[in-house]
Amino acid sequence: MKVDSTDLRVLSRAESMQLLASAPLGRIVFTDRALPAIQPVNYALDGERLVIRTRAGSKLAAAVRDAVVALEADAFDEAGRTGWSVTVIGHACAVPEGREEFSRLAHLPLAPWMPRDGQRPEHRDHYIVLPVEQISGRRVEAYF
Amino acid sequence: MKVDSTDLRVLSRAESMQLLASAPLGRIVFTDRALPAIQPVNYALDGERLVIRTRAGSKLAAAVRDAVVALEADAFDEAGRTGWSVTVIGHACAVPEGREEFSRLAHLPLAPWMPRDGQRPEHRDHYIVLPVEQISGRRVEAYF
Repeated sequence: MKVDSTDLRVLSRAESMQLLASAPLGRIVFTDRALPAIQPVNYALDGERLVIRTRAGSKLAAAVRDAVVALEADAFDEAGRTGWSVTVIGHACAVPEGREEFSRLAHLPLAPWMPRDGQRPEHRDHYIVLPVEQISGRRVEAYF
Repeated sequence: MKVDSTDLRVLSRAESMQLLASAPLGRIVFTDRALPAIQPVNYALDGERLVIRTRAGSKLAAAVRDAVVALEADAFDEAGRTGWSVTVIGHACAVPEGREEFSRLAHLPLAPWMPRDGQRPEHRDHYIVLPVEQISGRRVEAYF
């Protein structure tokens, strides 16, 4: 069993991908006006890429355009003091409406949590694609 | 009701602080070898400061020394599509063993999830104090 410097069990890439696929949402980390920012997002796995659906005019869409970003997903059981956390790092790219890939991404099981009015330009869908360039996962197991 | 550009309800500072106090853990965002990094942490509120307990020799302890960091906590109900997210930004500072403040922080209700062996130098406690300089909170409510 491989452990890191804080005795957490290091997960393999396969285990990490599997846990990532099981989580209903994650948190994307980006830079907003030179400060760290975190925002919960729901995502879908599309092979070795994460796909995030946002609005065309959102702060997130603007901030992660061609930026290196991280996405973290986790699940913890407070009572049992167990859980896991997986982080992906990659170079995000935007897929706005009109791109060839857009209609394929629109078929992913990726429902927005917020209502959208497709007639309003700022409500138009916009996808962020994050290739899984680096992935790391840790698991905390019940020790006491 | 104040909403942001994505129609999420903007929480007041008081509501955000209250939710922050209710969460069992959060995620700290920092920079590790020029890349974004996220790590789940448990924390306690000490007035207008967040206190995080880590190990003296941890990557986290080294990375957030005198850095501007963010800490996010959230809770979501996938079925109901409701939830909240609060992010704090502040200038972190370290309180290693020996500092006057250390023994006071050691009395906070802040149990580490991982076992510690106080005889091993790298297992010694080390606190990170994060003043709540900026706090922002959003709530998603059931629309459909």
